[in-house]
Amino acid sequence: MDQSRITQTTAVCRRAARAAPEVARLASGTKDAALEAMASALESSAESLVQANEADLAGARAAGSSETLIDRLTLTSGRIASMASGLRAVAAQPDPVGRVERGWRRPNRLLIEEVRVPLGVVAVIYEARPNVTADVAGLCLKSGNVCVLRGSSTASSSNRAIADVLIGAAGNEGVPAGAIELLDDPERSSAVELMQARGLVDLLVPRGGRQLIDTIEAQATVPVIIDGDGNCHVYVDRSAELGMATSIVLNAKTQRPSVCNAAETLLVHDAIADKWLPGVLAALSAAGVAIKADRRVHALWPGAEPASESDWATEYLGLTLAVRVVPSLDEAIAHINHYGTSNAEAIVTRDIAAARRFAAEVDSGSVFVNASTRFSDGGEFGYGAEIGISTQKLHARGPMGLRSLTTTKYVAWGDGQVRG
Amino acid sequence: MDQSRITQTTAVCRRAARAAPEVARLASGTKDAALEAMASALESSAESLVQANEADLAGARAAGSSETLIDRLTLTSGRIASMASGLRAVAAQPDPVGRVERGWRRPNRLLIEEVRVPLGVVAVIYEARPNVTADVAGLCLKSGNVCVLRGSSTASSSNRAIADVLIGAAGNEGVPAGAIELLDDPERSSAVELMQARGLVDLLVPRGGRQLIDTIEAQATVPVIIDGDGNCHVYVDRSAELGMATSIVLNAKTQRPSVCNAAETLLVHDAIADKWLPGVLAALSAAGVAIKADRRVHALWPGAEPASESDWATEYLGLTLAVRVVPSLDEAIAHINHYGTSNAEAIVTRDIAAARRFAAEVDSGSVFVNASTRFSDGGEFGYGAEIGISTQKLHARGPMGLRSLTTTKYVAWGDGQVRG
Repeated sequence: MDQSRITQTTAVCRRAARAAPEVARLASGTKDAALEAMASALESSAESLVQANEADLAGARAAGSSETLIDRLTLTSGRIASMASGLRAVAAQPDPVGRVERGWRRPNRLLIEEVRVPLGVVAVIYEARPNVTADVAGLCLKSGNVCVLRGSSTASSSNRAIADVLIGAAGNEGVPAGAIELLDDPERSSAVELMQARGLVDLLVPRGGRQLIDTIEAQATVPVIIDGDGNCHVYVDRSAELGMATSIVLNAKTQRPSVCNAAETLLVHDAIADKWLPGVLAALSAAGVAIKADRRVHALWPGAEPASESDWATEYLGLTLAVRVVPSLDEAIAHINHYGTSNAEAIVTRDIAAARRFAAEVDSGSVFVNASTRFSDGGEFGYGAEIGISTQKLHARGPMGLRSLTTTKYVAWGDGQVRG
Repeated sequence: MDQSRITQTTAVCRRAARAAPEVARLASGTKDAALEAMASALESSAESLVQANEADLAGARAAGSSETLIDRLTLTSGRIASMASGLRAVAAQPDPVGRVERGWRRPNRLLIEEVRVPLGVVAVIYEARPNVTADVAGLCLKSGNVCVLRGSSTASSSNRAIADVLIGAAGNEGVPAGAIELLDDPERSSAVELMQARGLVDLLVPRGGRQLIDTIEAQATVPVIIDGDGNCHVYVDRSAELGMATSIVLNAKTQRPSVCNAAETLLVHDAIADKWLPGVLAALSAAGVAIKADRRVHALWPGAEPASESDWATEYLGLTLAVRVVPSLDEAIAHINHYGTSNAEAIVTRDIAAARRFAAEVDSGSVFVNASTRFSDGGEFGYGAEIGISTQKLHARGPMGLRSLTTTKYVAWGDGQVRG
């Protein structure tokens, strides 16, 4: 390659790739000390981080950004404290690197071990939230990977300030230069370059909306894990405990409607529809939820808007819920497998056979029996933090923690074995 | 989609996708009985399979195919017996489906289990060897997947005959139609269609040469696991037991030089080069191996051809070996990580520190200590058969058996948990 034409993205990826073997070999104690130092440094730099953030906020306001975006972008001392506690939670997780996942001896006495190892260079493309900078840096370091962070231009001042604090603190604890890299010029071209940095990037995780994912699916040549849509379902079975069903539906829809594990469609067994639906629809309406109803639901709740075919496939990410009455568990499972996006689905039931069939036959990353879909989350799973929620089947599925950022290698120990 | 424009490939993939849920739910006993029936049916159909194969062989000879290809294409009663015993070996493996890989209880009493499930539709594109038809059908059935097989046109008569025998026998044991599908018109277009059957194919495994892999890397939009090149290394450390080193090098290079886990480069520590190299080079030459030598090796073995830079990156797949003397273990590791293809690498040493460093720092799917690289193989690992050897890091790495053909789902059991 013509050296004069190397872009910033390529240069950064090469620096990261050079650091990768050393980061892969870091002792757990070094990594944990660095994570603690990074957490403390964020806390003690809170004032300057808030200042850097104000520059981004001013730019976003001048550009007429939405209040939602402004909210996501804003750093407060509380949010900085959350980043620090996230890093400490990651430090408290067991180190996945070097774990022998399984091992066995062959008849020829070859001892084969499958050992967990870092991936190498993990790149993450993300949008407005600056806290992702710290989350990803922490998860990658603990899992022995280097990270290449590519945030949005809206948050570039905040991200640079956070990354500098993290890099400084990690460096003081013996983490090599290049372990945490942030692209400074987050133009669209740098995202595409990252997607195509084959041989330099071992994994790319896009954390963003449909447009980013479509671009990745069309253009990426590096290995990718898709953190995709969340068209999540709650199915209330005929045998459900109705109070529990109401509580789970309200939680799944309203506790934080803007996130991917919030419920978008409620499926209700016909046998309990007349008795249970009016009450839960009243409670949802009282909570500000607009209902999109099939004909049967509409008859019970005439104020609802009729649902169209596209409603069953829509991730509202807001206070709207599509509601359908189904004649059977089979129909509920078929509906979910047709319209779902493999993120999280829940059943409310007292019938163990229905629960087991739903768990086995619903094709999704996470299936919840008598619990809210909102638990599809790395933190709620106990992973300390999450790199995302995989909606694909290869490599990792569902909430992704440290293990998803690793691969394995086989190490076979012999005493001269040759093949006959 | 305009129904009249559906291609054979799409129709076959849809039939496979429709069968997938039922195949995923098959009991282990049903699958094992079907595998046994498939094995017996191959044996009892040997005569008609050989006849079908003769049509392919006649075509290949008329087309002036190489002897290597003719050999790969040929079915004999011995090879048919091997296919049958491969199916029985797969039946003898534990069923990966439904295995609870891990599970834990959260502070809120949510019980989270990670359960192994089939991928769904597995497509395999392969070249002349008709035995792959049976291997893949068996592995996919046992792992609860349906398979879409796309062999080469050279082998189409043999593949059709084998598939028909397998489908008939499996169907008699209750395996649903669509579980084993073979594309009948193996033109280039069907391979590309398969690579781009997004939403219908859950995993594509290409088993073929560089050209197929390049096409996949450029054009595939479905999830892929690459079974790539095998530029494998043997490093003989200064502390090696020299007799063992000779035996491992000869085995890794000459026992079956045309396969991906054969050694292509020998690295020798400087301290033993003068003493050990002349003998092993003489033995290699006696076995018909041509040597490509660096300057130091050339001085010891003047008959060798000088190695060029490209030799270190070449997978000869034949009786040629590049040989280099290295000043240190570090240099050996650096050489392998620079030129290797992550398939299989071996060290011969008596020094436990050297062995542990080599095992930890060589970035490869399989690392062998005091054993031949030829053991990088699903059968040799005890997997019954193999779907291939992954040279990528995501999802599966190294020899792939039944587990590589599955993914997991989380099933969380609660009693009304909602998120606060």
